[in-house]
Amino acid sequence: MNAAHTAGKATRLEHDCIGELEVPADVYWGIHTQRAIGNFTVSGLADWTHPQMVRAYATVKRACAEANEELGLLDHDKARAIIAACQEIEGGRLLDQFPVDVLQGGAGTSTNMNANEVIANRALEIAGHQRGDYRHIHPNDDVNRSQSTNDTYPAACKLAIIDALGPLAQETKKLARAFHDLADRHADDVTIGRTQLQDAVPMTYGQEFHAFASFLKADTAALERLVPQLTTLNLGATAIGTGICADTRFRAAATEHLARITGLPITAAPDPIAAMTDMSAYIAVSQTVKNLAIHLKKAADDLRLLNSGPHDGFNDLNVPARQAGSSIMPGKVNPVIPESVNQVCFRVFGMDTTVTWAASEGQLQLNAFDPVISHELLKGIELLTNAMRMFRERCVEGITINAALGRRYAESSPSIAAALNASIGYERAADIAKEASVSGRTVREVAAERTDLPAEELDRLLNTTALARTLGQTCRERE
Amino acid sequence: MNAAHTAGKATRLEHDCIGELEVPADVYWGIHTQRAIGNFTVSGLADWTHPQMVRAYATVKRACAEANEELGLLDHDKARAIIAACQEIEGGRLLDQFPVDVLQGGAGTSTNMNANEVIANRALEIAGHQRGDYRHIHPNDDVNRSQSTNDTYPAACKLAIIDALGPLAQETKKLARAFHDLADRHADDVTIGRTQLQDAVPMTYGQEFHAFASFLKADTAALERLVPQLTTLNLGATAIGTGICADTRFRAAATEHLARITGLPITAAPDPIAAMTDMSAYIAVSQTVKNLAIHLKKAADDLRLLNSGPHDGFNDLNVPARQAGSSIMPGKVNPVIPESVNQVCFRVFGMDTTVTWAASEGQLQLNAFDPVISHELLKGIELLTNAMRMFRERCVEGITINAALGRRYAESSPSIAAALNASIGYERAADIAKEASVSGRTVREVAAERTDLPAEELDRLLNTTALARTLGQTCRERE
Amino acid sequence: MNAAHTAGKATRLEHDCIGELEVPADVYWGIHTQRAIGNFTVSGLADWTHPQMVRAYATVKRACAEANEELGLLDHDKARAIIAACQEIEGGRLLDQFPVDVLQGGAGTSTNMNANEVIANRALEIAGHQRGDYRHIHPNDDVNRSQSTNDTYPAACKLAIIDALGPLAQETKKLARAFHDLADRHADDVTIGRTQLQDAVPMTYGQEFHAFASFLKADTAALERLVPQLTTLNLGATAIGTGICADTRFRAAATEHLARITGLPITAAPDPIAAMTDMSAYIAVSQTVKNLAIHLKKAADDLRLLNSGPHDGFNDLNVPARQAGSSIMPGKVNPVIPESVNQVCFRVFGMDTTVTWAASEGQLQLNAFDPVISHELLKGIELLTNAMRMFRERCVEGITINAALGRRYAESSPSIAAALNASIGYERAADIAKEASVSGRTVREVAAERTDLPAEELDRLLNTTALARTLGQTCRERE
Amino acid sequence: MNAAHTAGKATRLEHDCIGELEVPADVYWGIHTQRAIGNFTVSGLADWTHPQMVRAYATVKRACAEANEELGLLDHDKARAIIAACQEIEGGRLLDQFPVDVLQGGAGTSTNMNANEVIANRALEIAGHQRGDYRHIHPNDDVNRSQSTNDTYPAACKLAIIDALGPLAQETKKLARAFHDLADRHADDVTIGRTQLQDAVPMTYGQEFHAFASFLKADTAALERLVPQLTTLNLGATAIGTGICADTRFRAAATEHLARITGLPITAAPDPIAAMTDMSAYIAVSQTVKNLAIHLKKAADDLRLLNSGPHDGFNDLNVPARQAGSSIMPGKVNPVIPESVNQVCFRVFGMDTTVTWAASEGQLQLNAFDPVISHELLKGIELLTNAMRMFRERCVEGITINAALGRRYAESSPSIAAALNASIGYERAADIAKEASVSGRTVREVAAERTDLPAEELDRLLNTTALARTLGQTCRERE
Repeated sequence: MNAAHTAGKATRLEHDCIGELEVPADVYWGIHTQRAIGNFTVSGLADWTHPQMVRAYATVKRACAEANEELGLLDHDKARAIIAACQEIEGGRLLDQFPVDVLQGGAGTSTNMNANEVIANRALEIAGHQRGDYRHIHPNDDVNRSQSTNDTYPAACKLAIIDALGPLAQETKKLARAFHDLADRHADDVTIGRTQLQDAVPMTYGQEFHAFASFLKADTAALERLVPQLTTLNLGATAIGTGICADTRFRAAATEHLARITGLPITAAPDPIAAMTDMSAYIAVSQTVKNLAIHLKKAADDLRLLNSGPHDGFNDLNVPARQAGSSIMPGKVNPVIPESVNQVCFRVFGMDTTVTWAASEGQLQLNAFDPVISHELLKGIELLTNAMRMFRERCVEGITINAALGRRYAESSPSIAAALNASIGYERAADIAKEASVSGRTVREVAAERTDLPAEELDRLLNTTALARTLGQTCRERE
Repeated sequence: MNAAHTAGKATRLEHDCIGELEVPADVYWGIHTQRAIGNFTVSGLADWTHPQMVRAYATVKRACAEANEELGLLDHDKARAIIAACQEIEGGRLLDQFPVDVLQGGAGTSTNMNANEVIANRALEIAGHQRGDYRHIHPNDDVNRSQSTNDTYPAACKLAIIDALGPLAQETKKLARAFHDLADRHADDVTIGRTQLQDAVPMTYGQEFHAFASFLKADTAALERLVPQLTTLNLGATAIGTGICADTRFRAAATEHLARITGLPITAAPDPIAAMTDMSAYIAVSQTVKNLAIHLKKAADDLRLLNSGPHDGFNDLNVPARQAGSSIMPGKVNPVIPESVNQVCFRVFGMDTTVTWAASEGQLQLNAFDPVISHELLKGIELLTNAMRMFRERCVEGITINAALGRRYAESSPSIAAALNASIGYERAADIAKEASVSGRTVREVAAERTDLPAEELDRLLNTTALARTLGQTCRERE
Repeated sequence: MNAAHTAGKATRLEHDCIGELEVPADVYWGIHTQRAIGNFTVSGLADWTHPQMVRAYATVKRACAEANEELGLLDHDKARAIIAACQEIEGGRLLDQFPVDVLQGGAGTSTNMNANEVIANRALEIAGHQRGDYRHIHPNDDVNRSQSTNDTYPAACKLAIIDALGPLAQETKKLARAFHDLADRHADDVTIGRTQLQDAVPMTYGQEFHAFASFLKADTAALERLVPQLTTLNLGATAIGTGICADTRFRAAATEHLARITGLPITAAPDPIAAMTDMSAYIAVSQTVKNLAIHLKKAADDLRLLNSGPHDGFNDLNVPARQAGSSIMPGKVNPVIPESVNQVCFRVFGMDTTVTWAASEGQLQLNAFDPVISHELLKGIELLTNAMRMFRERCVEGITINAALGRRYAESSPSIAAALNASIGYERAADIAKEASVSGRTVREVAAERTDLPAEELDRLLNTTALARTLGQTCRERE
Repeated sequence: MNAAHTAGKATRLEHDCIGELEVPADVYWGIHTQRAIGNFTVSGLADWTHPQMVRAYATVKRACAEANEELGLLDHDKARAIIAACQEIEGGRLLDQFPVDVLQGGAGTSTNMNANEVIANRALEIAGHQRGDYRHIHPNDDVNRSQSTNDTYPAACKLAIIDALGPLAQETKKLARAFHDLADRHADDVTIGRTQLQDAVPMTYGQEFHAFASFLKADTAALERLVPQLTTLNLGATAIGTGICADTRFRAAATEHLARITGLPITAAPDPIAAMTDMSAYIAVSQTVKNLAIHLKKAADDLRLLNSGPHDGFNDLNVPARQAGSSIMPGKVNPVIPESVNQVCFRVFGMDTTVTWAASEGQLQLNAFDPVISHELLKGIELLTNAMRMFRERCVEGITINAALGRRYAESSPSIAAALNASIGYERAADIAKEASVSGRTVREVAAERTDLPAEELDRLLNTTALARTLGQTCRERE
């Protein structure tokens, strides 16, 4: 956090309600940011580690400046300079001017102040003034006009989350596609289905892989369903939702400008007081991301199990060998990619806990814990995005199956006796299954001995390929 | 768990793939239930503690019997007897015939077997046979025809949850209405808004109470949005989703019958293999219920805070005195109802943890932990339903406000200087606020001294009633 | 909650600071309890569902009465009657006189009031007076003398937890013993160790089972280590820790009497103000119980995995068949007992969440959420106690192994090449392991072909029995 | 993750059981590390972000080298070179040679391989050989001799945690001292104690602050109690606990060398098989750190509450003004430092969730999720360490109290009527308290009117200073 140190550097002097402070001459931030740098020394992570957040804040500020100008609350020249500064930031410039700790106290006030100051100082430059000469363009009176942290910060958080959800959805789709491709390649390969880890009845590898794709397809849809909650914003509500300091027309104007700029279906929350402390959108994001993690965990767990062996386990399939698995057991290769995915899932489960806590601890007219919520959600989304890319490229795409073993499994399962239920009843079928289980013989063999069913009828009833497909060949048609 | 004991009672002898067992002669259940009673001695809670579950299972069985009959898989007389037995259970009879522990292992197989046996035995009676004479109507071959635990149990769980969500939604609406009424009564009463527990700017009590109503209104809508997920069922998928033992037409037929009987928009899951292990619907319910709990926690927390005092706290309002609050401090009265609500919320947060664990531990073609999930969700829903009724009747409806104090608070807040921003700028307003804060004088007094603003202008700018309403009088119009 | 209804019953009239209320004539509780019955209608579970809690409260009250008498604060006759009443409750009588909801608000005040009233009324009877005639013995002035809810309720909770931990520790020991016995029976049976689900190196079944015993042995010790925290009490601290209303000698006296009565190393907390809101003991209990659940989960998970099959899985061992496993797959038998154990573990993880929440939400001089904490801990402890008994009796004691298969596994693992490291180096051993893995041959076979090591040397190096025991035969000696 | 790219750089060619790979010529790591860099692209955080972990691993390797040499398993020259290389790393050099992702799969194998390679290559240099010329000193055969990832990685994790707990304990002590100093300064300043947020009875500010110190003092002791669990290691257990590839004397020798080097009471776990999968030590660390966070949350919550106001809240005390609190409300100052502390606590609660998950998902002979556990624990410990320093320096040390208001609160509380219980009984005292509460008069005033107690007796009984101290002046004596 050396950013706090100004010793020996050229500085400019700024003041606030606390007093005066030197700010490095070459930075765009001002006194409020400078104090925040010194105050929050906790995570070692600055706001700039979430570029989506910085960009989103600039977008919100731009929409507000446009609305202020439209309503005659900000003169044209100031507005143009402010808007130009915002656009630079939206384009990726000045990212390093957002140095405040992501776990800052103050409900995001420091980040808002930081945005106001950077935008004001850059606008001052654009307008031909000196940085710090706030008589011309003031961080609070001009850039923050009609706004408060309590309305702009959550707006920026939600836009940043939407921004981050894009790559997550893309990777979700790609991973679904990879599982789908795998399913298509193995649509005819019969294996055993297992319930409660016990031999159950035949299915195809295709169906097994296709189920993972189906999970992810549902997750993609769920991610999209988050948009209405994330685009219900509260601009113009200012400090506590009454809209103090803001022209009453500002709410509609700012909302419209932001919708136009972003192309998103942004609306104003119906109850601005309630919206100020309602964390439902964050809880919904956390849950949807957690559910995606549950699906990834299932895929990782199942693949590790199906890959168990090579000689003393299930051995239904092989995940690609990525590296030597042991420093002592030569030649051992482990499913390290799914294991890494598992760990990301555990981290995401922790994210959900943190978000739930922060969302549940608001008091009266504000929940001051947006910063940790948006940080954790952005971090969790990033981790899952990376994990799915890794999972796809270095594991899923290279999976091979042991088809002969799968078919042998299917044929040897005692539970295949279920296929005889209609012919001989559950109870007689149970006797056959039990005998098969104990003796190690197949149901086909025992049934031939213990029933009158002709051989061709047994062949028909116990045909594993046919059984695997009873409800159709799900994995073939790409939905 | 004395249900397991049969000593000295009249019994009938039944058998299964394990062997033989005496079952009390006077019960409708059979050997599978009897074994389960003896096996699962964990929670002390039987399935009958969730009547919705028992009823829902009977409904599912009825729909399947109708489908079987329609498809010619079950003869008319058997079907009629089975359907009649199901209808009795749906009507509330035979509830005590579901004695298996709610934390049973086996993915719900015992409950399904229990339902099959009770329905079979009651159907046998209806058809003029003896209980246990399964040659005429068999629990597995007839009642369970075309079905498996893995498709019917989750169906019953989801219908039971929908059933339980009804009263929850009703109580949510009633509590929202109670807050709305309270808001209406205090639409003109000004008080202080506080952010980060610091004096902020004026609002009305009406707005404060209305926000709680808004939360709950959103929760009601969220509860309704759960229906599509909870009505996507998997009938006909049987053991692992391939539909083994079921006619391929059964899926559509059973789904349609169930939709008709329940009046719910029931559909068949697009990927039956995936649906077998997808716990997304449960996660969605858990999250929605948790979010409702977060809103209740906020209301309970805020009311406890606003009720703090009587002399040494906020004292904005008074929750009704329900009982003496201390065994040692005479006359002390505590906000015991909100405290009880808080505790229920903590329990619901625990529910979400349990559900997340269970939902994340499926393996291969089944997640065997539906029983703990449905139990926890039904229990959490019941707790919240009860808690909201208690909260409304014994707390919210009796809240009174301290209007004069609220107004005094509004006028004394230094942050009201925000109303001067547009006239004198943020920095000069800050000086006035600081002086007001330090001196204990009002902003009105300091501003009169330090600015040129005429008295009537100050009166206009600093009118707390007007400020409280800037964004409209949300609480008046009942949406 | 019919307990609240007094319609048509004989009643007596009592009063408190709220007003008057009819109390059924035939109950021992008074007005405070009666109000609480009507106020808290949430869980449907009364205090009497935790008999340990009721007994412990009586014990605390007895110790306080003795201390009061010793210090001359309570006359002899009153003290004797109160003590006699307490002893009756400690002996199990009057349990049904504790009807208040376990999720009551008020930090336990209702339960304390309930105890004061029941003890006072029973003491009145013993002393020859009428119930309700509090002039002779008063619930607050006499029974509660020198006490407050805030010091006695946590004391009772902690004693109740100690009481509940006894059976938990006993079942933990018994389950450890069962695993130990199993280990002893299989101390010489070689099988394969697997890491990351991949074939690793030989071990014995005995070592595998012994590890479960070792976990539980450590848990037993951990449960015992909780005692010092649970016996650090705060008697005499009264309302907030200053000891208002209590003679300063009372703290030491009451602590000593309680220690003598219970035989526990009870001490007074060094900082009575801090002790009032310190929930560390509950967090420690929750963690220790959670850690036990983690160990049980591991045993249940591993046994389910090792039992997988019978033909298409690991099949290292067989858990006892307890019931038919499927309504559709005849003869299928599932590991239902470990699955039930798993579910209890998930519930315990939820308990830890609830306890953490409640422990973290204290405010100023009190944490009002002891009731939900003690309820959840007692419930979680009860569930685990039951689960371990079930696990032992219906699963662990009946486990059989598939010794021949285990030995074959051990011999076929490619990782056994590790035993050649010292002779030929990791890299050449890796080549051998890889060839064994790919070809399906044993390391012994490949090594014979690719190295100069003589046959007897290979036999010595690759002797699975010897390898399994390198670090000694842990499972033989009963520690 | 550019570390993975070797394009255009000088390289050396290495091989493993997967094949060959180019490794940059100028790095100390080898092929296993190089593969891991490319495999794990998830968190963006390398092992080097936890210097304690890198140092600890080198220490473990050094102890093992010494033990190997002592037992004649490693010749003197190799041992000396290896030891020298380890010492360099322990001294902080070569930190940048540990580039593998902290969320790596593989149970830490990559980090162990990385350590083996870096140490081997540095030892090769020291011994006058080329990097990569493993004929002289081999990463696996020499550096890793008698070891496995499964025994050394957890050892390094636990030593790293001990290392990180040192600064945590130091900051805990310092913060306790700061609260203690604050308590000493205000040992005579009377204020009101509040239970359930309602006015209770008098206490001193000193007692209030001292309680926070007491919590932290207990936490410091709890941190120390972790050492025995963290120093029970499993060296010599190798792959699964049987000690394959390790001389049986190695366990004792390596343990002793490590104890000597570190000065820690390191012992060998009694059951090496169990120790391999026992995560109890991590759970204990997580719980102890969580409990510290609960205490910090309480302090932060209470300070924010006591600081509420300035005019419309409790206003018992003032946390230092650190920065302007609002972009719109001029002059508003918020308790931003406690708010930041709160957020860190929520993050730590998330850590506990992640650790619990990872600790509960071991399978058979290994829990592969040590990497995420050690990362989360080290991160959580670091966050709390930083948070406490910030809390102390920028908040606690600058707290001032509003003594006159505190005294007024104490005198005006109706609950002070408790002091009359002994004289007039709980019921009459309740009437007085109720009248005081309703009328706004003091208990002193009402009691003078409604009782016969002489004025001097009332003065004595209701003396707030005396009442606050009944149980002694806890805060004065520095324990």
